[in-house]
Amino acid sequence: MTTRSEEELIQWIQNRDWPISRRVRLGIGDDCCVYRATRDRELLVTTDLLVEGSHFSLDTTSPEDLGWKIGAANLSDIAAMGGRPTAFFFSASFPRDEQGFFERVVVGLNRILDCCETPLAGGDLSSGSSVLFSATVMGDVPKGKALLRSGARPEDGVFVTGTPGFSGIGLELLRSGFRLDNEDGLIPPGSNKATVRMPDRKIEFLIKHLRPVPRLEAGRILRKSQVVTSAIDTSDGIAKDLRQICRNSGVGAVLEKESLSRLATRLTVRLEDILCGGEDYELLFTLPNQAEETVLNALSAQGEFPPATRIGRICAEHPGELRLLDGENRLPLSVDGFDHFN
Amino acid sequence: MTTRSEEELIQWIQNRDWPISRRVRLGIGDDCCVYRATRDRELLVTTDLLVEGSHFSLDTTSPEDLGWKIGAANLSDIAAMGGRPTAFFFSASFPRDEQGFFERVVVGLNRILDCCETPLAGGDLSSGSSVLFSATVMGDVPKGKALLRSGARPEDGVFVTGTPGFSGIGLELLRSGFRLDNEDGLIPPGSNKATVRMPDRKIEFLIKHLRPVPRLEAGRILRKSQVVTSAIDTSDGIAKDLRQICRNSGVGAVLEKESLSRLATRLTVRLEDILCGGEDYELLFTLPNQAEETVLNALSAQGEFPPATRIGRICAEHPGELRLLDGENRLPLSVDGFDHFN
Repeated sequence: MTTRSEEELIQWIQNRDWPISRRVRLGIGDDCCVYRATRDRELLVTTDLLVEGSHFSLDTTSPEDLGWKIGAANLSDIAAMGGRPTAFFFSASFPRDEQGFFERVVVGLNRILDCCETPLAGGDLSSGSSVLFSATVMGDVPKGKALLRSGARPEDGVFVTGTPGFSGIGLELLRSGFRLDNEDGLIPPGSNKATVRMPDRKIEFLIKHLRPVPRLEAGRILRKSQVVTSAIDTSDGIAKDLRQICRNSGVGAVLEKESLSRLATRLTVRLEDILCGGEDYELLFTLPNQAEETVLNALSAQGEFPPATRIGRICAEHPGELRLLDGENRLPLSVDGFDHFN
Repeated sequence: MTTRSEEELIQWIQNRDWPISRRVRLGIGDDCCVYRATRDRELLVTTDLLVEGSHFSLDTTSPEDLGWKIGAANLSDIAAMGGRPTAFFFSASFPRDEQGFFERVVVGLNRILDCCETPLAGGDLSSGSSVLFSATVMGDVPKGKALLRSGARPEDGVFVTGTPGFSGIGLELLRSGFRLDNEDGLIPPGSNKATVRMPDRKIEFLIKHLRPVPRLEAGRILRKSQVVTSAIDTSDGIAKDLRQICRNSGVGAVLEKESLSRLATRLTVRLEDILCGGEDYELLFTLPNQAEETVLNALSAQGEFPPATRIGRICAEHPGELRLLDGENRLPLSVDGFDHFN
């Protein structure tokens, strides 16, 4: 394979088929991207840094899946606010001799941006000894309507979409040596040939970990309901993410073991997978009890994702902390998740 | 010094005194920043990745200067389009035991954002074996008024602001072992004490390299003049940056050796410093001859920076290429600058 110059590589990226948005008046190629906002909408901006070793391992992830995941993780932050993604900025650093690898990452990113109709609007390339990526996504939302982490109120129910816990189990499977082949067949540890095809639980877990789908449509439904009081996407596990809502809203939360256990049984996962598994990119949200049926029905009607499940409720007591309601007991829940510096 | 957890570190950053903008309705702390655009302005977005070894060396740069430069380099892209910066996003990865270093980088970034009245609106922190930063800046500009690289027309004059070449000489001095102390005194190679104080040429060169000031006010003056046909900030040397204008505008350019030599003499630098030195973050722009006087006067009147100098002109011939006019000869100019992948 030929090595491209920096300019040629940028040209190669530009020439791919990316979604187009009229918001991006001028994309790649000048000092800045020129972006057209409208009066009735607010902009959302989120940024992520992904470093080999800390955020991903090239031993267990294909370059295409990595590109997909970088896109999905950032688009998920837009989903959590009920927004629509409108422009993606992608920067990368990698060793000079790894261009082939990088191009496959771009292919994966292209796929998820296509799915989410989000144009690539800029970025920056660099050579360097380690592999790392930085992504910034812009989105928009009707003015004043963004779903925030800060509006949860006592007595609100706590809900989560889809299949929390799947991604964490997928990661465990990767660590035990399971892989997917190009057609998503399951390659067992020590083998190099897929022996199992869909439908299969292990394959589902792996796909959820490798190619999560941001809950953009669910986020928009929640926002349009006008009754959702707070929302966050689950990247660090439900316990840690719910604590973020509690801290931002100045409230406490009670997770109900009975509901969690029912969900765990339905999903065939363990309770701790649901509570502590990271990188699910589901939406965790709160709303008043009387609105529960309407909102859950709206989510189910959409049909593109498993409906949401009630798992607890907000309370005025112990602000910033979680309790697990187990029968009559309220056990304090430890929420030590991943900390980059401890 | 105590090591902070990720949360405490974010809190520490948030608690610093950052400029405030009413554009940023919600900054650090939720899934996205919520940004308020207005109907009559377009947004500018630019992003940069800076990797130790490729973009900076911790042997020759203090953490504070590094933070300053990360800010300045990105704000300079907003200046090149005639915009006003409105929100800064800063991500960093560094080894766990380097928090003290990182905090000093933030102090430097704080200084330049203060100078340019730009709020810190978000970011991402990670631990990792190498040191790297990613920055994204948003700015705005009246609708349709951004200075682009693509409008240069034959017969337009080519101009550059300030002191092109200074930064490259500063870099050479650093490589030869010169340093600045905390009060910008000059420490000669092999010594650890400053022997020279301002005013001094070497100190000027070093300061230009270590703490460039983005030409935001100059960019706004150029944009308001409504006659500037193209602009770019000089990060890769005038030759390479002018070629960008030529390629984007579908024109060629002739650099006049006589004007360049006069400028070099005035600045006490060599011709090649002006043509090839990188990281000056000056503005390179084009405009019709009849507007020259008005625009140069407007720049001089502002007074905060050295006035702009005419160095050549745009031509219809040899699109995308540069010639050096030396007496009667037109020599093809090679513009091989820095390429990350060759």
